[in-house]
Amino acid sequence: MGSLVYVGGLSLEDAYAVRGIDGKTVGEELRRIGYAGSAKPGWLKPHAYLELHIEQGPILEEEGQVIGAVEGITGLVWTEITITGRASHAGTTPMHLRRDAAYVASEIAVFLRRLARGMSGNQRCTAGRIELYPNLVNVIAERAVLTVDLRNTDAAALQAAEQELAVCLDRLAAQENVAIATRSLASFAPIAFAAEIVSLVDTTARELGLPCRRLPSGAGHDAQMMARLCPSGMIFVPSVGGLSHNVREETKPEHLQAGAEVLLNAVLKLAE
Amino acid sequence: MGSLVYVGGLSLEDAYAVRGIDGKTVGEELRRIGYAGSAKPGWLKPHAYLELHIEQGPILEEEGQVIGAVEGITGLVWTEITITGRASHAGTTPMHLRRDAAYVASEIAVFLRRLARGMSGNQRCTAGRIELYPNLVNVIAERAVLTVDLRNTDAAALQAAEQELAVCLDRLAAQENVAIATRSLASFAPIAFAAEIVSLVDTTARELGLPCRRLPSGAGHDAQMMARLCPSGMIFVPSVGGLSHNVREETKPEHLQAGAEVLLNAVLKLAE
Repeated sequence: MGSLVYVGGLSLEDAYAVRGIDGKTVGEELRRIGYAGSAKPGWLKPHAYLELHIEQGPILEEEGQVIGAVEGITGLVWTEITITGRASHAGTTPMHLRRDAAYVASEIAVFLRRLARGMSGNQRCTAGRIELYPNLVNVIAERAVLTVDLRNTDAAALQAAEQELAVCLDRLAAQENVAIATRSLASFAPIAFAAEIVSLVDTTARELGLPCRRLPSGAGHDAQMMARLCPSGMIFVPSVGGLSHNVREETKPEHLQAGAEVLLNAVLKLAE
Repeated sequence: MGSLVYVGGLSLEDAYAVRGIDGKTVGEELRRIGYAGSAKPGWLKPHAYLELHIEQGPILEEEGQVIGAVEGITGLVWTEITITGRASHAGTTPMHLRRDAAYVASEIAVFLRRLARGMSGNQRCTAGRIELYPNLVNVIAERAVLTVDLRNTDAAALQAAEQELAVCLDRLAAQENVAIATRSLASFAPIAFAAEIVSLVDTTARELGLPCRRLPSGAGHDAQMMARLCPSGMIFVPSVGGLSHNVREETKPEHLQAGAEVLLNAVLKLAE
């Protein structure tokens, strides 16, 4: 969010007003910890931007690579879907009279898997959050809220996935007699990093004798925002077991060192 | 639970130890409110047991009936299912490497609908509770806990449904590389009420000029437990819109009165 504000993609006021799941706003918390500075976002336009990061995925490890020269960032669409059906008794309500929000949420999650498998490119679809109300063993759920995370390296394919999801929601709303509302949580088009930065990372790694491959990033990063302002790129190092968003997330010390060496040498070249 | 203890189906100690979702035990709370009596469960064996209740379903209203003579209670199996997969990044983890507990929970909920539709008898299947961990938009769920409520008026069909669910869980565990554990929350076989009590309710309603039909109960009731001790039965009155487990649950005053009249007259007959 900080980099998005810096490049002018989100106003400072809107960023300050964002409320966390603990109910606190970004602005209040930044002031509380003394990090609400006075510099104007975007005041310094960098010559170039280079970001070192763990891959957070399994590709480098699987191929025995040490460095990833990141070609770009996958586009992302986050949507919150609220399904409103009717609470009723699990024992007395015949199947054909149900307006079951939990069932509809589950159909959406199952549809997402089918969608990802059927799409071209690196389509990924995830339902990571599902909440039911009243969430009791013997009550048909009145309401379900779930999130959908769609990603693709190809902008047209990502749009097609969004469209297919919309068709699925319309079909389920009619078929199951429920109301389905959607709210956009985030949306970023895929971006390609500057070709000269990708080459620079690749060349620098090879000069240091480090096995390197080019690959896209499935996760969002600051470099994706900074690319609007200046030539940008990223250096990836392997994640053990491809794990991220998991307490067992790990990168070996020698890979951390390799990444730092590529960063240092690439920055020296950029500084001429 | 009180009636189950009364008829000897659950020990007093086990009932006292049951912990509510607010963390308090039944025994502590009964003592706190002064309701922990000293009478021995089952000390009084009734001549007969008759229970007046709202239908909690749509059948009487749909058919324009006023009284339901309840023939028996649907059998019930409640199971808590815990799925353990692996938390990982929604953007970087390829679809085929996921061990997605949310996806598996959703497949189970979708399977239940198919199962209910395909079974004979009054099979009902519900997933009313689903909880994911960590439950975040961009994290593939590591763990999902859901409850399954299976009901059928036919004991053999209910067992067959349980068996089909078990086969489904085994298939999903293998296919999705997740661990699936189940815990029984409750299990009651279907029961039939004493024929003379069902007839008594039916006859009494007709004598009072009240439209009456026989039907099974999809919900559990105290009469189901008391039937172990003495001839038992139930009188149903219509639920507006068939709604129950919903804040709009309602029964019309004239139906409440009709039910009370049937109860009074049936009890007078039982008392000779």
